[in-house]
Amino acid sequence: MPIISVEELTRIGQELYQKLGASPEEATIVVDLLVESSLAGHDSHGIRRFLQYVAGIRTGKIVPKAKLEIEMETPTTAILNGNWGFGHVTAVKAMKIAIQKAQEASIGIVTVHQCNHVGRLGGYPLMATNQGMAGIVSNNGHGGDLSMAPWGGVGRILPPNSLAVAFPSDHDFPVVLDLTTAVAAGGKVRLALERGEKIPKEWLLDAKGRPTTDPTAYVTDPRGSLQPFGGTVGHKGFGLAIVLDILSGALSPAGCSRMNAEVSGNALFVQAIRIEAFKPLVEFKAEVGQFINYIKSTTPAPGFDEVMVPGERSYKTRIHRLKEGIPVEDETWSDICTVAQDLGVKL
Amino acid sequence: MPIISVEELTRIGQELYQKLGASPEEATIVVDLLVESSLAGHDSHGIRRFLQYVAGIRTGKIVPKAKLEIEMETPTTAILNGNWGFGHVTAVKAMKIAIQKAQEASIGIVTVHQCNHVGRLGGYPLMATNQGMAGIVSNNGHGGDLSMAPWGGVGRILPPNSLAVAFPSDHDFPVVLDLTTAVAAGGKVRLALERGEKIPKEWLLDAKGRPTTDPTAYVTDPRGSLQPFGGTVGHKGFGLAIVLDILSGALSPAGCSRMNAEVSGNALFVQAIRIEAFKPLVEFKAEVGQFINYIKSTTPAPGFDEVMVPGERSYKTRIHRLKEGIPVEDETWSDICTVAQDLGVKL
Repeated sequence: MPIISVEELTRIGQELYQKLGASPEEATIVVDLLVESSLAGHDSHGIRRFLQYVAGIRTGKIVPKAKLEIEMETPTTAILNGNWGFGHVTAVKAMKIAIQKAQEASIGIVTVHQCNHVGRLGGYPLMATNQGMAGIVSNNGHGGDLSMAPWGGVGRILPPNSLAVAFPSDHDFPVVLDLTTAVAAGGKVRLALERGEKIPKEWLLDAKGRPTTDPTAYVTDPRGSLQPFGGTVGHKGFGLAIVLDILSGALSPAGCSRMNAEVSGNALFVQAIRIEAFKPLVEFKAEVGQFINYIKSTTPAPGFDEVMVPGERSYKTRIHRLKEGIPVEDETWSDICTVAQDLGVKL
Repeated sequence: MPIISVEELTRIGQELYQKLGASPEEATIVVDLLVESSLAGHDSHGIRRFLQYVAGIRTGKIVPKAKLEIEMETPTTAILNGNWGFGHVTAVKAMKIAIQKAQEASIGIVTVHQCNHVGRLGGYPLMATNQGMAGIVSNNGHGGDLSMAPWGGVGRILPPNSLAVAFPSDHDFPVVLDLTTAVAAGGKVRLALERGEKIPKEWLLDAKGRPTTDPTAYVTDPRGSLQPFGGTVGHKGFGLAIVLDILSGALSPAGCSRMNAEVSGNALFVQAIRIEAFKPLVEFKAEVGQFINYIKSTTPAPGFDEVMVPGERSYKTRIHRLKEGIPVEDETWSDICTVAQDLGVKL
């Protein structure tokens, strides 16, 4: 597996998207977030998505230089229409608006529609922590992108709706929760399939609603479905998915999940909370820092080396990969090289 | 098990608390919420808590007629000091302030400290849905009340922090998620212990961090701990517990969970979002209603009769118990009768 430097991946990515009509600013936002995902070890939403968005532009799904429009606004709220531009660009704009509003009014909520895939959700709340705020983002599939069963039901009814929340701390890293409501994302099932491996029986239900360890059940008709997380209390993961669907889909014009949605993408709920409306930022950061220390002082359970807080593993991976470079899977790299040559991007 | 009418339980409860110094308004709030919990089938947070709060008053932990104070305020935010009055009264006041702020400014967030046990969290967001708003409430144990292990760790490090979210719909019931981040609440473990039953092995870890089916491990030294929900991905339930701890404890003056907290109770994060800042309420309710219909149209999985949305089961139980009365466990009823006679409350 080739290991490529951040600088090289960034340059290639930016040139690729600009060749296809993206503005330099758009290309920078998209590529930086994809590279950051890979740096953080979230490879499923990183470099391997380079070509997904290239294909999106070529098929007309992603509209470079789309005009972002605020459709409805109060001092604390806004609805942002992404007009099917780059999802990452739309999500960044939404969080910027939420932060601006929170700077003035202590809280800002922006809901988003007509937005393409925004990738790793956990990247956006970090914009808030960098401004001394808490950040919260949730998504649904803009009505579509169904792949998960409801608790107690059969079939692909919901997306694995996700939630990301981040808080600043006085450690080197913020607390960042970034969770999908499925036990495992579809990408992990596909990876097992490519590698000819079985999957744990709690990941997937076959088309009749029975747990299966065979990943082919996810892709061959009649298709199976991801399970909501929670194990024997999977109603909790399912319930959380319902809440995130309503926050993202019903508070935006995109709508909740449904059969036969015309399009798919991401509807978003984006919130920023100004910490200093509640206490001095330095005190809040110290409190969160103490909490991190307290959690990490726990005796590890059998089979564990240490207790990690949410966001810690990503931070450590990022430090390592910033120095060592990002491992890119052979096939992904080979495909990127082909497209780059095709578009006249120097390798 | 005696079955008692709502009217009778309400009268007895109100007289009990007033005999002990509660104002009529306080007694009404506390008893109505306890009765509503039992009506909704959440017996662990209902009538069986009558005497816990009686004991709280007698030991001085709960201060009747405590003065609630707003300590810090902006047009969208406030910090409420409950001064160790009734937790239910403090939480109701917090949600009322959040709703007032959201009526003016579209969003209101109130954090709460010096607050006693607030009971069932799911009762409070319903105040928001009744006003055409979304309601969100989370808690921690005010630094204490530790009973849950972290993911990958041993020991009682966190409370089973909880989250409740509700949205209005055009059905007879709102969508209400009310989840604790433990697989099962401590009360369920104690119930199994009283009944001499084994518990499922994913509920509890013994003092060495090993799964156990023996509920005595929860109460005898060295004590075991509840597990965060999520099964093989218990880091998700744990991560959610961390986020709720910071929202409730670090945004309020109460602080996050820690060893040897001086007191225990509930610190709260309480948010109301005015739906009409985003779309007409009637449209939002219709969207949520359609979503409920869509989810419920799912084919049930093997072993299930139907797919239920969050809040539906509670609604159905409430309809039934309003008509038939509330079943109260023999011992609970007998204890209530003893205390009632003691205080001169007519039975």
